[in-house]
Amino acid sequence: MNFASDNTAPAHPRVMEALARANLAPTMPYGNDELTRAVETKIAALFERDAKVFLVSTGTAANALSLAAACPPWGVVYCHPESHIDDDECGAPEFYTGGAKLAGVEGASGKIDPAALEEALARAGAGVVHHAQPAVLSLTNATEAGTVYSPAEIARLAGIARAHRLKVHLDGARFANALVHQGCTPAEATWRAGVDILSFGGTKNGCLAVEAIVVFDPALADTLAFRRKRAGHLFSKQRYLAAQMDGYLENGLWLDLARRANAIAATLGAGLGSLPGASLVHKVEANEVFVDLPEAAIAAIEKAGFSVYRWNGPGTTRLRLVASWSSREDDAKRLVETARGRVPAAGR
Amino acid sequence: MNFASDNTAPAHPRVMEALARANLAPTMPYGNDELTRAVETKIAALFERDAKVFLVSTGTAANALSLAAACPPWGVVYCHPESHIDDDECGAPEFYTGGAKLAGVEGASGKIDPAALEEALARAGAGVVHHAQPAVLSLTNATEAGTVYSPAEIARLAGIARAHRLKVHLDGARFANALVHQGCTPAEATWRAGVDILSFGGTKNGCLAVEAIVVFDPALADTLAFRRKRAGHLFSKQRYLAAQMDGYLENGLWLDLARRANAIAATLGAGLGSLPGASLVHKVEANEVFVDLPEAAIAAIEKAGFSVYRWNGPGTTRLRLVASWSSREDDAKRLVETARGRVPAAGR
Amino acid sequence: MNFASDNTAPAHPRVMEALARANLAPTMPYGNDELTRAVETKIAALFERDAKVFLVSTGTAANALSLAAACPPWGVVYCHPESHIDDDECGAPEFYTGGAKLAGVEGASGKIDPAALEEALARAGAGVVHHAQPAVLSLTNATEAGTVYSPAEIARLAGIARAHRLKVHLDGARFANALVHQGCTPAEATWRAGVDILSFGGTKNGCLAVEAIVVFDPALADTLAFRRKRAGHLFSKQRYLAAQMDGYLENGLWLDLARRANAIAATLGAGLGSLPGASLVHKVEANEVFVDLPEAAIAAIEKAGFSVYRWNGPGTTRLRLVASWSSREDDAKRLVETARGRVPAAGR
Amino acid sequence: MNFASDNTAPAHPRVMEALARANLAPTMPYGNDELTRAVETKIAALFERDAKVFLVSTGTAANALSLAAACPPWGVVYCHPESHIDDDECGAPEFYTGGAKLAGVEGASGKIDPAALEEALARAGAGVVHHAQPAVLSLTNATEAGTVYSPAEIARLAGIARAHRLKVHLDGARFANALVHQGCTPAEATWRAGVDILSFGGTKNGCLAVEAIVVFDPALADTLAFRRKRAGHLFSKQRYLAAQMDGYLENGLWLDLARRANAIAATLGAGLGSLPGASLVHKVEANEVFVDLPEAAIAAIEKAGFSVYRWNGPGTTRLRLVASWSSREDDAKRLVETARGRVPAAGR
Repeated sequence: MNFASDNTAPAHPRVMEALARANLAPTMPYGNDELTRAVETKIAALFERDAKVFLVSTGTAANALSLAAACPPWGVVYCHPESHIDDDECGAPEFYTGGAKLAGVEGASGKIDPAALEEALARAGAGVVHHAQPAVLSLTNATEAGTVYSPAEIARLAGIARAHRLKVHLDGARFANALVHQGCTPAEATWRAGVDILSFGGTKNGCLAVEAIVVFDPALADTLAFRRKRAGHLFSKQRYLAAQMDGYLENGLWLDLARRANAIAATLGAGLGSLPGASLVHKVEANEVFVDLPEAAIAAIEKAGFSVYRWNGPGTTRLRLVASWSSREDDAKRLVETARGRVPAAGR
Repeated sequence: MNFASDNTAPAHPRVMEALARANLAPTMPYGNDELTRAVETKIAALFERDAKVFLVSTGTAANALSLAAACPPWGVVYCHPESHIDDDECGAPEFYTGGAKLAGVEGASGKIDPAALEEALARAGAGVVHHAQPAVLSLTNATEAGTVYSPAEIARLAGIARAHRLKVHLDGARFANALVHQGCTPAEATWRAGVDILSFGGTKNGCLAVEAIVVFDPALADTLAFRRKRAGHLFSKQRYLAAQMDGYLENGLWLDLARRANAIAATLGAGLGSLPGASLVHKVEANEVFVDLPEAAIAAIEKAGFSVYRWNGPGTTRLRLVASWSSREDDAKRLVETARGRVPAAGR
Repeated sequence: MNFASDNTAPAHPRVMEALARANLAPTMPYGNDELTRAVETKIAALFERDAKVFLVSTGTAANALSLAAACPPWGVVYCHPESHIDDDECGAPEFYTGGAKLAGVEGASGKIDPAALEEALARAGAGVVHHAQPAVLSLTNATEAGTVYSPAEIARLAGIARAHRLKVHLDGARFANALVHQGCTPAEATWRAGVDILSFGGTKNGCLAVEAIVVFDPALADTLAFRRKRAGHLFSKQRYLAAQMDGYLENGLWLDLARRANAIAATLGAGLGSLPGASLVHKVEANEVFVDLPEAAIAAIEKAGFSVYRWNGPGTTRLRLVASWSSREDDAKRLVETARGRVPAAGR
Repeated sequence: MNFASDNTAPAHPRVMEALARANLAPTMPYGNDELTRAVETKIAALFERDAKVFLVSTGTAANALSLAAACPPWGVVYCHPESHIDDDECGAPEFYTGGAKLAGVEGASGKIDPAALEEALARAGAGVVHHAQPAVLSLTNATEAGTVYSPAEIARLAGIARAHRLKVHLDGARFANALVHQGCTPAEATWRAGVDILSFGGTKNGCLAVEAIVVFDPALADTLAFRRKRAGHLFSKQRYLAAQMDGYLENGLWLDLARRANAIAATLGAGLGSLPGASLVHKVEANEVFVDLPEAAIAAIEKAGFSVYRWNGPGTTRLRLVASWSSREDDAKRLVETARGRVPAAGR
C-alpha cells in the first residue's frame, strides 16, 4: 500500500534469481566476465545499434557520467527546471562535469517547450568567451510529471539541439514506463529520434540497483570507462550488476513490469480524477499521478494506511502517487474508494 | 581453484540470504529505513565508538570519499607508493578531493617507514603557499603486500601524522584479514591507534558490493552525506547495502571468513616458501602470498588449471596468490604439490 | 568618445606613476614586500576593520576566489539573474568552487527582491541531502543595471541571508561608483550592513588590472592564500598590483574618479531621458545609463563617432552607455545634442 | 646586490615605456584590440609557425592552462621531481586539469633521463582502466637546476613521449636564458624538437607580469580561450599584457636581457666554482648558480649585504644564486672576492 515512491518496491523475484545464479559462477573481476559482456551485447541488440554500454548502480551516477561525457566544464546543460539532474542530485552533474551549468527551460507538465528551448539557445552567446557554452540538451522520459514524450516530440527538441551543435541526453530512470506508453521500439524512442546517450533505468522497475549508460554516439564513449572507474562506479564484482540487468531484460520482464505499474497508475488517475473536487495536475501517462484532492480525502487515504506524498510539503493538498511493478490493482481501487467516501457526491 | 584475486569469490550464502530477507520488507528509500539505521548502529557498536557510518558499494568510493572529507583540494595525502589509492583507482582521490596530490612514502613490504614519513613531512613546506599542504596519512591494512600493521605500528605512524596536524585514513579493503591476524579488537586496530576515518571492506570477503566509511573524528563526518549523494553513491534502495553488511557481520561471519582465507594463504605460503628455488617476497600475514618460483613450477601450476597472477607481467616469475573465504584448503595443498613436482629436490 | 565600456578607459596618470615608483624599488617576490603589506593595511584601515586583503588582477578572479572561500562544492550561490558572476564569467564560480550552483533571484533594475530571496530560500531544501545547499548570497553594487543598493537595502538582504546561515558576498567591480552615490563610508556599505567578503574593484575606475578581495569574516580568510596561489593569481611581482592600489587610493583618487564618472552618466541620463520618444530603463545612479531611443537618434550618435553598446544586439534600440573617469563632460553633452537633433521636438 | 631570485628585478625601462604608450591609446576590452592581435602575430612569427597565442599574467597560469589543454582529468603528466609545476604551484596543474597526476621522472641536474622516462611509460598501464593514463611530458628549459636542454635532448625526450601518444609541454619561464645558451632559433628549441605547447616567460626577464601560452599543436588551442576566461586570466584590459610583451620582444630586447643575466651567472659560477673548498652542484648554463661553499664564505657574503638563497634551508651551505637582467657584473665580481677572502688559499 505504498504509493509514495517506486523506490520502495522490492526487487522482482526473477531479478533475485538471476543474482543468485550469477553467484554460483565466480568469474574475473571488474567486468571482464562473460555475463557482463553478454548483457552489454544484449542491450545493444535491444536498441538495434552498435551501442556502447556501461553498467552502474545508481541513476545519479548514470546521469552524471553521461553528462560529463557530453559536456565540457564550461558547458551548459539545458533541462526542465523540475528535472532530477537539476533538483535532486545535490549537484552531481556539476561535480562530474567539472563545473558545468544547468539551465532550466520551461514547459508544461515536465516537458520542455520547443519555443522556450529555441529562445534560450538564441540568447546563449555560443562562441563568446564570456559565457558558458551550450553543450547538452537533457530530456527526461517518462518526465518528472509522469507524462511521456512521444518520439516525434523528442525528435523535434533533438533537432533544435542538433542545429545548435548540442548533444542530447535522455534520463530514462523510468524509460520502461515511457516506452510501454509510447508503444514504440527502444530505438525509436532514443537514437532514431536524435538521442545520443541514455540513462537506462532498472532500479525503480524491479531491480536492486542497476542502470545502464547506453551510448549511441561513439564519440561520447571514449572517456566513459575511465570516468566510471575514477568515480568509484566500476564494481570489482561487476557481474552482480550484469545479473540484475540479465534478469530484468529476460523475456521482456522489464516491459511487463512497467505495463503493470502504468496500469495501476491509470486506475488511480481515472478514479481520483473523476472525483468531485479533485483535479489531475498532469495527464497520467506513465506510473505517476499528480492530483489535487480535498483535504478530507487525503486525510482518509492516509488514515487507511496508504503511504502517499504531499508534493508541496506538509499541509498541502497536491498528491504525488507512484505505482510500481509491485503495486496491487485492488489497493489502487481501494484507495480511490477511500477518497470517494470523503468527497461531496457529484451533481449535488 | 582461482587464486588470482579475492574479487572472484562469490558472495557468502548468508549474505545472499540477508539480501533476500531485506527484499521481503519494502521500506523508505535513500537510507531512511530501519535496516540501514540498525546496521549503522551495529557497526558503531562494533567499534565501541559513536562513529558515523556511510555505506557505499565500492572500495574506491569509500576511499575517495574518506579522503575528500579529510583533505582540501590543495592537500597532500601521504601513502605507500604501492597503495591502491595511488596505483589502482584511476585518480579517484584526485577527482573527489578536487585535485589533491598523493605522495608516495617508501617502506618495506607495503608498510610505510616511519623515518621516511618524518622526512617527507619535514620537507613538505607546511604553511608555505607555494606548496600543496600536508593533510592526510593513508595507511592500508592488510597492506598491498599481504602484510599487516600491528596496532603499535599504526599508532607510531599516526602519532607522527598527528604531530604534523594530518588526519589518518585507513584503507581497510581487507580489514578483516588484518584484524584476525592482529588478534585485537576493531577499536584497537583503528581509532585507539589514531585512525580518524576507515574504509571498512566487505566486498572482497564475502559480500557482493558493500563497504562502510566509518568516521571516528566527528569533524570529518559533516560533509560526507552530501559528498556521497553528489557522487551518485547514495542508493535509492540503500537497504540492499545494509542487508549485505547485516549478513556479513552477524555472528562474526566476517571474521570467520577472513580466518579461513588467511589460513589457506598460510598453507600456500608455508608450502611454496619451503620449496627449493622458491622464496617468499613478503611475510604471509593476511590472505595474499607473493612468491618467486622457478618458471617450471609456475608452468605446472598453470597447466593444472590454477588461476594465478604473474605480478610483473607475462613471462615473469613472481606470483601473487590470493586466498578468499571460498578457497579450499585441498586446492591450496594440491597447488603446492604441483609446484613441488617441478622443482629440484632439496639437498641435492 | 567611447561610452561602450569603462574597460576602454586608460589607467590614471597617478596610478601609472605609482607603478613607475614601485619599479625603482626591487623587493622580495610573491607579496613578501613592504609595499604589498602597506597596501593591505591601508585597505583594512579604509574599511575600519581588521580585514584580510588579497590582491588579484581581475574581477573574475576576485569573485570566483571569494565565492570558493564561502561556498562548498555542493553549495548554492543566490544572485541576480543578470549578475556578472552568472552571466559573464564563463563558469568561473563553478570552476573555483568545484561545482556549486548559481541560482538566479529576480528583482527590478538589477537588485534582488527580498521577497523573492525569502521564497527561494524557503524552498531550497536546506539540510536535505538530495539538494544543493544554500550557502552564499552574492550582491553586486553598483548593479549591472547601473543602480545602487543603499546600506539599508543591503542590510535587509544580508539579514535574510544570515537567518538562513548564508555568507554574503559583494561584487564591487564598481564599488567606488556605488559608494559615492550612497554617500556613506566603505564600512557602512559593507560589513556594517552584513557583507562578509568583498570584491573591491580598481580596474574599471582608473587602474590597469587590480582588484582586492577584502575579507571581513575571519573564517573565510583561511583558505584564500592557497586558493589564490593554486589558481595562478599570486603574482611573483605582486608589488605591481600593490602599486596600482596605492596610487588609486592615495588622497581619495578612487572616489574622485568615481564621482567624475557618475556625474557624466548623470548628464547623459538626464539629457537622453528627457528627449521625446526616449525612456530611461533604470534610474541612473552610478556610471551606467540604460535608455531606449529612437533608431534615428542612435544612428546619429553612431555616425557622429560615439562608441555605444546596443544592449540587446545589433538592430535593437536599447543602449547601454558607460561613463568612465576619463569620459568628458562635453562629449556627453554633444552626444545628447546629437540625439536631440533626430527626435521629434517635444510637445508636438 | 640581490641574487636570491630573478623575481626581485625591476621591469626594464623599455617595457615600462611600452606600457605607458599603450595607456595613451584606449581600446576595446578583453583582447579585442589591435595591440593584442599584433603581439600575438609577432610571437607566432618569432616561432615561424601559425601558432595560437594566449597572454596571461603568471607562469603558474601559463603552465596550468597549458597542461589542462593537453591532459584529461585522469591523465598523468611526467615531469622532473624538482619541476616548478610539481613543487611550487600549490597544485595548480591538479586544479586546472580537474585532478590529473604529476609523476616525477628522475634525471641529473634537473633534466629528465630518457631511460627513466621509457621505464616510467613502460609500466604506466596505458589503456588499463585502473590506472591514470599517460598524457603529457612536461619539460622545463632552462631547468630548475640552471641547466639547459639542447634541441637534440628535447627531441629525444619528445620522441619517446610521442611514441607513447603523449603531448609535450615546455615550461619556459626562463626560455630566453635557455635560448641564448643554446644559440638556436625559437622554433628549433620548441616545435621543431617536438614541443606542442609552450609557456613562454616574460616576467622573470624584464617584464612586470606577462607570459604567453604558445600553442603549436592546433588541437590543443580549441579550449584555451574558454579555460583562460573561466580561470579569471583574461584581462578586461588585456592590452597591458600585450604592451609588456611588445616592449620585451622589440629589437631583441628579451635576448639581450637574457644574455646579460647568463653572463653574470657565468661570472659567479666560474669565480665561486674555482674557490678552494667550493664545488658547483650543476653546470652553470643559464642564469642560476648552485654551489656548495664553506660556511665562512657564505657568512661573509651575507654580511657584505648580498641577498642569496640557502637552498636547503637555514644553516645549510648550498647556495642558489640567480642573476637577472638588472644584476651588475661588478656586484658579481665583488661577491666572488668576498667569498675568496674567507676560504683557505688554494694549494696549501
